Amino acid sequence: MPVWVGQEVQTLPRQADLDSAMPVNLAAPDPASLLPVAGVALGVAAAAIRKPNRKDLLVIRLDDGANVAGVFTQNRFCAAPVVVAREHLSMRKPEASIRALVVNTGCANAGTGKEGLAHARQTCADLARLLGCTPDQVLPFSTGVIMEPLPVERIVAGLPACIAALSADNWLAAAQAIMTTDTLPKAASCRLTIGNVPVTVTGIAKGAGMIHPDMATMLGFVATDARVSRSLLKAAVEHAVKRSFNCITVDGDTSTNDAFMLIASGRAAMSELDDARSPDFLALRDAVTEVATRLAQAIVRDGEGATKFIALCIEGGRTEDECRRIGFAIAHSPLVKTAFFASDPNLGRILAAVGYAGVADLDVSKLELYLDDVLVVRDGGRNPGYQEADGKRVMNQSEITVRVVLNRGNAMATLWTCDLSHDYVSINADYRS
Amino acid sequence: MPVWVGQEVQTLPRQADLDSAMPVNLAAPDPASLLPVAGVALGVAAAAIRKPNRKDLLVIRLDDGANVAGVFTQNRFCAAPVVVAREHLSMRKPEASIRALVVNTGCANAGTGKEGLAHARQTCADLARLLGCTPDQVLPFSTGVIMEPLPVERIVAGLPACIAALSADNWLAAAQAIMTTDTLPKAASCRLTIGNVPVTVTGIAKGAGMIHPDMATMLGFVATDARVSRSLLKAAVEHAVKRSFNCITVDGDTSTNDAFMLIASGRAAMSELDDARSPDFLALRDAVTEVATRLAQAIVRDGEGATKFIALCIEGGRTEDECRRIGFAIAHSPLVKTAFFASDPNLGRILAAVGYAGVADLDVSKLELYLDDVLVVRDGGRNPGYQEADGKRVMNQSEITVRVVLNRGNAMATLWTCDLSHDYVSINADYRS
Repeated sequence: MPVWVGQEVQTLPRQADLDSAMPVNLAAPDPASLLPVAGVALGVAAAAIRKPNRKDLLVIRLDDGANVAGVFTQNRFCAAPVVVAREHLSMRKPEASIRALVVNTGCANAGTGKEGLAHARQTCADLARLLGCTPDQVLPFSTGVIMEPLPVERIVAGLPACIAALSADNWLAAAQAIMTTDTLPKAASCRLTIGNVPVTVTGIAKGAGMIHPDMATMLGFVATDARVSRSLLKAAVEHAVKRSFNCITVDGDTSTNDAFMLIASGRAAMSELDDARSPDFLALRDAVTEVATRLAQAIVRDGEGATKFIALCIEGGRTEDECRRIGFAIAHSPLVKTAFFASDPNLGRILAAVGYAGVADLDVSKLELYLDDVLVVRDGGRNPGYQEADGKRVMNQSEITVRVVLNRGNAMATLWTCDLSHDYVSINADYRS
Repeated sequence: MPVWVGQEVQTLPRQADLDSAMPVNLAAPDPASLLPVAGVALGVAAAAIRKPNRKDLLVIRLDDGANVAGVFTQNRFCAAPVVVAREHLSMRKPEASIRALVVNTGCANAGTGKEGLAHARQTCADLARLLGCTPDQVLPFSTGVIMEPLPVERIVAGLPACIAALSADNWLAAAQAIMTTDTLPKAASCRLTIGNVPVTVTGIAKGAGMIHPDMATMLGFVATDARVSRSLLKAAVEHAVKRSFNCITVDGDTSTNDAFMLIASGRAAMSELDDARSPDFLALRDAVTEVATRLAQAIVRDGEGATKFIALCIEGGRTEDECRRIGFAIAHSPLVKTAFFASDPNLGRILAAVGYAGVADLDVSKLELYLDDVLVVRDGGRNPGYQEADGKRVMNQSEITVRVVLNRGNAMATLWTCDLSHDYVSINADYRS
C-alpha cells in the first residue's frame, strides 16, 4: 500500500453563501509533502507568454534512460504540441530516451495550422540544443487560449532561465507554472516499497475548465523512480487514466491539448519490473492510479465556479460502458448541475438525464436513485417514504454522492463532477479579458 | 407558397447591457394573425395545478373524422401521458378518430411510476365522459416539474370550465396556457391554396429549457383543415420535425415529455390528399414545416436566459448525420455558449468542439470557419487576414450565423441555438422556488 506524505486533502469550511471563488474542499499542496523523484529535475521561468512576471514556462529534465509513456486527447483538432509529442514518443529507440518535457501556459498552440507545428518543433530544437540531445528527445506541451499564435521567440528566450532553475524539489513551482484558470496548484506524492526498495510517485496536473478528458486531463505529469519496462509503463498509464482522468468532467468540453505523461526514471535500486502480474508491478500501478485519481479529483474540486463536489456511482448495469454513459449524461446536464448549485433536490432532472443517456433497452421501472443514504426513487418512481427535507439536507452539503442502481447486471462506474454556477459563466465570459 | 398572416417576427431593439430577461427578437403573436382551423376548438381554464389563478389547463376538441399523427420523446424515462398518448394513437381505427387533446402545465407527470399512468388514464376517461367519446379517443399531455405527483382531482375538476370555454379563436390563449418558463407564447399561422380551396395551418408550442428535442419539442401542436390521409400525415410530421424541432437545442437536455402533434381536421372542401408526390401534398407539407420551424425558432429565441440567436450551418460534410453531430457539439459546448454571451470572439472554442464531435476521420486542415461574412479559419488555422475587430463586430450582434465548411462532401445541416448566460443559471437554480 502506498504511504501518503504530508496532510490529507483537507475539508475546508464552506461559507453559507457558497463563495464559489474557492474550490471545493481543496487545499494547496504542502511543499514538504511533494517528494522529489530521483532522475527528474524541474525548472520554471517567467517568459511573458500572456502576462508579464508570471512563471509560465516549465522544463522537466530527465536523466538518460528514463521510460516515458502517455496518452493524448482524442480531439481531432488536437494542438500542434500534441502532434509533435505523439510523433516523438512513437520514434523512441532504446539508445535515445526522452530527455526533457517543455510546457507553456497562456497559449494552447491549437488551431494554429502549419505555423503552430513549426513553433512546437522549434521549441523542441532549441531546448535540445541547450541540453545536448536531439529534438525528438524533447516532448512539447501547451495550454491556454486556442487559435492564437504561439509567441515562440519568447518561449525560446525563456528556456535558459528554466534550465538555470532546474531542481528536484521544484514540483510545487511546476504545478503553479502550468495553471490557467486553476485557483490552486494540484500535486500529490506517495511512497511505497518494492522488494525493500523505497520508491516514490509524484505528480502534478492542471485544469479547471474545458474538462471532459477523452484520454487524459488538460495536462498531467506523474513521475516515479521505479524501473519499469516500456510495455508495463504503458499498461500502468492505461489503468490509471481509465480510473482517474477519464472519470471526470467539469463542462463536457474535451480539450485540444489533453495529455497525461508517466515518467519512470529507473533510478531506484531495483531490477526492472517486466511481469504484468507481479505483485510489485501491481503495487506500483495502484500507487500511480491513486496519485492520478487525487489529481483528477483536485481538478473537479477546482472546476470553474464549482461549489459542490459530486460523485456519481452508477451500479447494476449490464456493461461498464452503459454505466459511464448514464453517469456522463447526468454529469453534463446543465439542469442537473444548476439544481446542485441551488441545493435544490429537483431530482427529476437526474431521471430525465438517465432516460436520454442512450441506453435503448433500459427498463426505468426497475431504477433506484439514492442521494447519499436517502432513497429517492424506487421502482422508477418517487419512493413513497421519501421526504423532500431529507433530499434538501444532502443537497446542502458540499460533497454529495448520487447513486443510480439500474438493477440489470453487475457492472458499475464511478465518475466525479461539479455543479454549474454563476461563476462558471463569469469565468468563461471573461476568460480572455 | 404559404401566405403569412399578420406581422413577421419583429426584430426588437436590444439593450446594450444584454437584458437577458427578454427573448431574442421575438414578439408575442398578434391574436389577429392566428387563424382558426375549421373543426378544431380550444378552451383553457385555471385548475390551480401549481399556481392559483393561472390558466394551466387546455382542451383541444376535434370534430369527428380528424386525422392525428405525432412523434414523442425518445427519453427512456418518458412521462406517463407520453405512454398513454402513444398507446391511444396506435389503437386508432377509421370509425373512432381522436376527439380531444388535454394538456396541463405545472406538473410533467414523469418519474411518477404506476400512479402517474393511472392519473393520465383517469384524465382521459373523465374528459371522454364529458365529450361523449371513449377514453382512447383522448390524448393526454403534461409539462412542468418532473417526479411530482399529478394533482389529478384538480385537473378533472377543471375540465368542465375548459369545455365551456371552447372556441375556434382560442389559439393564443392555448399557447399561453401551456407555457412554463417561457416568457412569451409561441404561435404561428399561415394560409395556402390547394386546388383553389383555401387551407389553413395554425400551430402553438412551448419550451425554453430542457430543450434538445429528440423527436419533438417539449410540446407542439399544429392543426390544418386540409384533408390528408393518415400515412401522408405521418410523412408530413417526419418531414417537418426533422427540419424544425429536431434542429434546435437550448441546453442539450432532452425532455421526458416532448411531443409534437399534427392534426388534420379534414374540414376543407377538398378531396383527401393521398399521393406523397403530388404538388398539393408537398405544398401542405412545406407549409406545416414552415410553421413548425417558426415555432422551433421561437423556442430558441425564448431559450432560458438567451441573449443571442445563433444559426449553425455545417456544410461540405460526407453525411447529414456528421454535419448534425458537429453542429450539436458546438451548440452544446458551455464554453462556446458563454463566449457568445460575452460577445467574445474566442473562436478556438468552436474548433475544439468540432474536434471532439466524434467524426473520427475528420481532416481539420481542410476546415473553414465563418462568422457571418467574416472568414476566421482557413486550412484549419487562423486566416492570416482575420482581424479580431471583425469577429468582435459580428459577436456583438444579437443574431449570428456560424458557418463551418468541412470540405469533404456535399451534405449539410442547419441548427439553431442560443447562448449560456447568468440568467440560465438563475432561472434553473430558482425554477421550483
